[in-house]
Amino acid sequence: MSSSTDLEQIESRIVELVKDFVTPHADDAVAPSCKGVADAVARQAVVSSEGGKRLRALLTLDSFRTFADDAAVAADFDAVLDLACAVEVFQTGALVHDDIIDDSDLRRGKPSAHRALACGTHSDAIGHGLGIMLGDMLATSSVDIANRAARRLSHCDDVVGAFLTMHREVEIGQVLDLAVELNPLNDPEGLVDASLNVFRWKTASYTTIAPLEFGMLAAGSDAATARDHAMAIGLPLGLAFQLADDLLDVVGSSHNTGKPVGGDIREGKRTVLLADALSGANATERAELIDIWEAPSRSEEQVRQAITLFASTGAIERSHDRIHDLWNASKSVIDTLDVSDDRKELLAMACARFVPIVA
Amino acid sequence: MSSSTDLEQIESRIVELVKDFVTPHADDAVAPSCKGVADAVARQAVVSSEGGKRLRALLTLDSFRTFADDAAVAADFDAVLDLACAVEVFQTGALVHDDIIDDSDLRRGKPSAHRALACGTHSDAIGHGLGIMLGDMLATSSVDIANRAARRLSHCDDVVGAFLTMHREVEIGQVLDLAVELNPLNDPEGLVDASLNVFRWKTASYTTIAPLEFGMLAAGSDAATARDHAMAIGLPLGLAFQLADDLLDVVGSSHNTGKPVGGDIREGKRTVLLADALSGANATERAELIDIWEAPSRSEEQVRQAITLFASTGAIERSHDRIHDLWNASKSVIDTLDVSDDRKELLAMACARFVPIVA
Repeated sequence: MSSSTDLEQIESRIVELVKDFVTPHADDAVAPSCKGVADAVARQAVVSSEGGKRLRALLTLDSFRTFADDAAVAADFDAVLDLACAVEVFQTGALVHDDIIDDSDLRRGKPSAHRALACGTHSDAIGHGLGIMLGDMLATSSVDIANRAARRLSHCDDVVGAFLTMHREVEIGQVLDLAVELNPLNDPEGLVDASLNVFRWKTASYTTIAPLEFGMLAAGSDAATARDHAMAIGLPLGLAFQLADDLLDVVGSSHNTGKPVGGDIREGKRTVLLADALSGANATERAELIDIWEAPSRSEEQVRQAITLFASTGAIERSHDRIHDLWNASKSVIDTLDVSDDRKELLAMACARFVPIVA
Repeated sequence: MSSSTDLEQIESRIVELVKDFVTPHADDAVAPSCKGVADAVARQAVVSSEGGKRLRALLTLDSFRTFADDAAVAADFDAVLDLACAVEVFQTGALVHDDIIDDSDLRRGKPSAHRALACGTHSDAIGHGLGIMLGDMLATSSVDIANRAARRLSHCDDVVGAFLTMHREVEIGQVLDLAVELNPLNDPEGLVDASLNVFRWKTASYTTIAPLEFGMLAAGSDAATARDHAMAIGLPLGLAFQLADDLLDVVGSSHNTGKPVGGDIREGKRTVLLADALSGANATERAELIDIWEAPSRSEEQVRQAITLFASTGAIERSHDRIHDLWNASKSVIDTLDVSDDRKELLAMACARFVPIVA
């Protein structure tokens, strides 16, 4: 099981790796008059990297420990640590772009990167541009970190290939996430299918499937076996995680998430919760939900009313049931793995961190 | 020397590679209701990939031919062709983001990607988001293509490392390009230095240095030698290329560039041309230039007046001189290379494509 030492090592290594990548090196000549802005972007890269729960990095390490023999755990730990950090750096870059796309002011309780950079340069346009470039830099940095880590491991080509596949899947997922916003509201079943499909691409891909796969590949599994196991365990787990995250947006507090409660509703996002609410609603409730979502923006009263409808239509309970079933599916695959009971336990506890709501 | 066959092979291979990456594969389940948007993004990836002059890919191939022995040229050509295409795909992705940052309507004479996607989805916000993701997808695709190509070559780790360095340098360059916009106009020498420094990062890096380096690495050069030669030839060549491109923006026609004449001036960009004009201007001319650039926007008459001032202050002639000197610096390094005269000639002609204005 990961100790607090894992977390500490992940935190300090992320800062080292990100700083090294985004800071112009001693032999990189940058014009003095531009250095201030370059330094501000480098500082923001570190600030944006702080504050994550590091669930993905922890899962990468624990997946490695589950499948590697003891000698490999000792010899290859540092390389796998870097690979674990690469997943976190990738996420940070993806969130920087996500906040630009969603026009979000806050991330993890602090100003989003493009807002902070707009503030620092006294220009919304330049902040927006620097935010896009910061996201690009973190994405490249993540591949660079993963590539260097993979070079120190066997199956290195498979690791780099899987890392690039993860990038591609999340990018397709973000496209699908925007596509869902164009879905009609009069087909709740279609909306459930589409939303769960988006979760597979934009969330499960890098949150659970890829960390499990990286750990297995680093432990020496062949590519096909690693992919199959990672999908079988990680896909239901990743869906459960996103459903729980969406639920937290409705029933949680802004203290827990660093975001105001009901943020998804305020943005008019089409979620599984909304689809389940439309599905379980009577005619009056359904008309009310559609009115709220089709309005150009939503008042605080409408946000509260939507949450009330999510409860009264059974959507919140339905999400709890979905999460429970998905978590059981994930656990049952872990039970069938050809590893010792201790290691099954280790992996199950690592996976349980993604669904504190039921586990 | 590259024949038209090089160009034809580059064009058709780019389309194959981009389509393969951006299109969800047969085993990638995408929800039916989201497929239309995913397909639109995939189509736009191909459309955005069309219409480049492919100078970077051609230079990669000719650099390879200059340094490789005949057996390697035959055996490794297909892998180097893919590597050459990867540089073009990288550029396409960078331009998609650049057009979002600059809020540009046109690229290569067609609607910019985010504008086309906004039109297709009837939403500026969704077009903007899809444009950011398309740029991300093309960036990942370029690394994926380069990584697969490198695996088929010797020195494969050096090739992947150099490819990621290129990404990083251009990303830093785009940050510096935004930083220059905050530079004061009362220090023309500082502005010249800063602008040339930006050209090194955002243009020379991937336009000339990296293609030369990739060709040399693919031909079997060690990493340090390849980098040194690529910098010595490619840095002055890349600066000359960008100066010539900026000059074309002022003296060219929109038929040549696919962009309206004076676009940089209209945007109020701080260029070497502007810095040279400020440097060579008398007090009246300088005040006039500063007024034009500090205005919130520029009229067509002001654009014409700025071009007149670029000529009367000697800035246009100064740019011609700079381009000439830089091209001579690049050529003189080619002359010192330890390859046959035929091959020096081949490389010089490949480099000359970047500066048709003097070569």
